[in-house]
Formats: sequence, C-alpha cells, structure tokens
Amino acid sequence: MTGGVVTGSPPGGAFIAIDWGTTNRRCHVIAADGTVIAGERDGRGILSVPPGGFADEVAGIRARLGDLPVLCAGMVGSTRGWAVAPYVPCPATIGALAENLIWIEPGRTAIVPGVATAAAAAPDVMRGEEVQLLGAIAAGLAPPDALLCQPGTHSKWATIADGAITGFATAMTGELFALLRAHSLLADFMTGAVADGSAFRDGLALAATATPLTALFGERAGAVLGRTPADDVAARVSGLLIGQDVAERRLAPGTAVHILAEPGLGDLYATAVTMAGGVPVAVDSHAAFVAGITAIRSLAA
Amino acid sequence: MTGGVVTGSPPGGAFIAIDWGTTNRRCHVIAADGTVIAGERDGRGILSVPPGGFADEVAGIRARLGDLPVLCAGMVGSTRGWAVAPYVPCPATIGALAENLIWIEPGRTAIVPGVATAAAAAPDVMRGEEVQLLGAIAAGLAPPDALLCQPGTHSKWATIADGAITGFATAMTGELFALLRAHSLLADFMTGAVADGSAFRDGLALAATATPLTALFGERAGAVLGRTPADDVAARVSGLLIGQDVAERRLAPGTAVHILAEPGLGDLYATAVTMAGGVPVAVDSHAAFVAGITAIRSLAA
Repeated sequence: MTGGVVTGSPPGGAFIAIDWGTTNRRCHVIAADGTVIAGERDGRGILSVPPGGFADEVAGIRARLGDLPVLCAGMVGSTRGWAVAPYVPCPATIGALAENLIWIEPGRTAIVPGVATAAAAAPDVMRGEEVQLLGAIAAGLAPPDALLCQPGTHSKWATIADGAITGFATAMTGELFALLRAHSLLADFMTGAVADGSAFRDGLALAATATPLTALFGERAGAVLGRTPADDVAARVSGLLIGQDVAERRLAPGTAVHILAEPGLGDLYATAVTMAGGVPVAVDSHAAFVAGITAIRSLAA
Repeated sequence: MTGGVVTGSPPGGAFIAIDWGTTNRRCHVIAADGTVIAGERDGRGILSVPPGGFADEVAGIRARLGDLPVLCAGMVGSTRGWAVAPYVPCPATIGALAENLIWIEPGRTAIVPGVATAAAAAPDVMRGEEVQLLGAIAAGLAPPDALLCQPGTHSKWATIADGAITGFATAMTGELFALLRAHSLLADFMTGAVADGSAFRDGLALAATATPLTALFGERAGAVLGRTPADDVAARVSGLLIGQDVAERRLAPGTAVHILAEPGLGDLYATAVTMAGGVPVAVDSHAAFVAGITAIRSLAA
C-alpha cells in the first residue's frame, strides 16, 4: 500500500474500514489524513461467518492490522450479518450515514447504515454502495449532481442531487448472468470469455430489440443451428443483459454516466452506455470507498 | 381411456404414439380411427434413458401396450436422444413432417422431425411442439391462419398460415422462472403458490413498465421492506415473466391467441394475453397432439 505513515505505528485518528459484503471482505487501515496504509482482501464474506462469529472475526482483523477503531459497511449490517443497521431514507447525505451508525461498541466499532428509497412504484434498498456513491462525490470524483452506476451482481443506478442520493434503482443483471451460466440450458454454451468485442456488441444490439426472453432462447437455437460460435455465447448473453440493464434507464442523449467498477466490467458498461447514447465516465471505485468511509469517520468522530 | 375398441385387441392401423420429451414421456395407443384406447405417462424422459437404452425402452412399451408400430416425437429426435431427426424448414406442413420421418426400423419405428426457422435475425428450432401445432389445425381446434402459443419451460409462439407453420419464436420464460425459484436471491421468497389473482396481475403490470431486470430486484426490496407479502412474490415474478413474454409478441389489439396448455398455466397466459389487448382461445393440447400424430401416421403409411 502507499502513504508516508509506517504500518504498525498508526497516527491518532487512524481506523480500520471494512467493506464487508455477502461473499467478499476488504479491510483497509486508513490514516487520519485518509491515506490507506495497510489492508487485506479475502473471501470471508458474511455468509462464511457463523452466527455469533463476527466479534471474533473483527478481533482477528485487529490482531493482524492494529488495535484501532473499526467502521464496517455493507451486508454486515443486514439480517444475515452482525447487527441490523437501519436504512437511511432518500435524500441520503453522507452526514445522515454518519449520524445513524450502529455502534457495536461505543466509540470503537460501528456499522454504516444502508439507504432505502420508498418510491411507491419501486421501493429499493442498498447496503455498502452508499459509501462508494457519496465518497465519489466527497472526493470530487463525480460532481454533486450526477447519475452514478455501480455494475455488479445487483447493478445500482443512483441519482445524486446537491450531493445527496435522491433515488436509485437496482437491476439483477449480474445475478441473472451467473444463474444462466451455472444452471440453464445455455450453460453448456456459456464457456467462452466475456470481453468487449463483436460478440458482446451483437448482444447489445439484441437488447435493443426489447425481446430478452426470446433472445435468450435464440442463443441456444443459434448455437444448435451452427449460426453462433459457442465461444461467443457468453459474451452475447452478457451484452444482452447489460444492454437491457442500460436500456431500462432510458438515458437522455448525452447523459453522463459515472461508472464505479473494476476496469473489465466497467469497460463493458461504458460500451453499453455509449451505444445507448450516453457518455460514460470511469470512476475509481476503491478510491471512492476510501473517501466515503473516511468522511463518515470524520463526521462521526 | 375412452373408445369403443378393447385394449389388447387393437384394430389394423393402430399404433403407439410417444410424446418423448426431456424429462417426461407420454405414450398413447391410438386406433385407426384416431381414438386413444390406452396409454401411460411417466418421468422416463430422454435424460433418464442411458445412451443405447432407447430400443429397450420401446421394447418395454410394446410389451405393456401392444406389439404395434411406434411413432415418436419430441427431444427423442435430438442429439441427446435416440437418433437425430432433421429439422423441416418453415413453411412446415404436416405432410412435410410425414415425409421426413427418421425410420429406426422401416415400417415399424420412426421419429418425427423437428421444425426450424432460418430467419436471419432470429433462427429458432422446435422438437415435439410441431405435432401439437399442426394437429390443432388438422383437428379444426384452431383455424388454418392463426397465432398459437404453447406456454412452458420454453414458450413457443407460432404463426400458422394456410395450415403451415410459417414462423415461430421461443421465449425462455418457464426456465427463467424455475432458475429464479431454485437458485436466486429471490428463492427464499418464492415459496407461495402461483395462480391468477391480484399478485399475478401486479406482476403483469410490472412487465408493462418494460424494466424486468429492475423489477426482479424490486421483488427482493419489496419483501425486505415489508411492502410485498412474501407469499405473493412467486405469483408476482410469474406475472412479470409471463407479461414480458406476451409483451415481446407486440400483439395488435384484438389478435386471437390460441393457447395450447394445461389449464393452470393456460389460464395465466389467457389473463396476460387479455391484459395485452389480445383475445385468448383455449385449445386442448392433448387432443391436438393425438390429432397431429395420427395425421402424420396416416400420411406416412
């Protein structure tokens, strides 16, 4: 990791930030100035922690990374996690997150709340993404009025106005892709790599026909009839689903979409946004998380 | 079974028709006049038959039902089945099916071919459904110019013109529902019954918003937030998927849709067709199969 502070001798105000999801966990030691000075990443998501096992997990993290205050975000605050953190309603600011921490041990260990939108037509919830979203704004990585996209198992699309999350929607894009690849009649064909290329873009074009259920079966028919190389099916299905996801946003032409993702998945969404008439802007999602959790820590201190 | 002919003493021209799918099998002893005089139904679909085991299966069927000619239709003619039957191209008539039987034992045992549409934008294939479709026309259960729908794991929508299948599309509707119920994040919530009712119709309304990936995640959010009773989620997801399936047909107002299905599933599609502005007409799918396979047998004799 980077920074001018020596690990093992953290300054006053340093803390451990844990991005604790369903299947993965990432820990950062963050100095008072917001610099990451140490960290670890593993597969100890909440589903791998037995009930009642969270305190021991955090004790282990402190033993490895330092006996520091701990601030957790993500599914660790869900009913399957350590303790249930509330949902802050929209419009949700970073200040509201800081004010609504759940303290496991006062002053020492806390969980960041999630965010909910109570829109009657489309209630929705998030846990963990809010730190990245508001962190991107806090760090100036995205403007205070913006549309942000976090692709993934459950893709989040958040509208930010005046620095607050005012509304958001979630699409089951990545989960559906994983289900199809693991369990469907297409599984035998979905063995190829997924990357931006002609097969992926053919899938985006299929999405534009707005017949996803038919297009999915068409992938099998195309492979059976020898029309589509089997190696292309995974990339085409990815294009179909990501294209559908972006199409559901009904982007006005020229709309900037700030994409917070790892480069590979982020590139796929950037292509889909461009083909839908939008303007993709890549945002460093790890920098956004660190900025967000550091701001929450400062506001809550 | 019904009919004036005594089982065990079949008349000349009687035969055994086998509707042999992936997971299920249905055998009918059909008299020369098209009357079903005996039958059996079981789970001996092609996936439960070991390679090379089909001849023994049919010997067993003959031992139970009579030493008669056998005509098979369905996935038994696929690469995973007994022998690969060809695909007859559209426009496909019942005569073309009869002319392109694959004879396992000449004059005694045959497999009905499938049907393919080579439309450049949407190649598609069927195996087994063609017998029902053309049988419905042959028996006068649907007119010779009609739109037919066969809901199921892979829903088929076939355009019939002048008594021939001129084109068709397949949607992965039932398979996607099963994947979601068995393996997704929604699985825990999808335990309720699926029937035509307010939850199913709410799902149809969700489909009309044309944001299926977002609506699927919304089911989880609605349940987590206590907005949707968990008992309703399965019916809502069914409505969402069936509504999407029907929406992909872009029915002109007043279009008659002849639905070949078991009553429960057929009723759901009838409601979806009605809400999309079409006019559903229920067709007895078993009568259609028997009429179709009998016509093929007559034409091939």
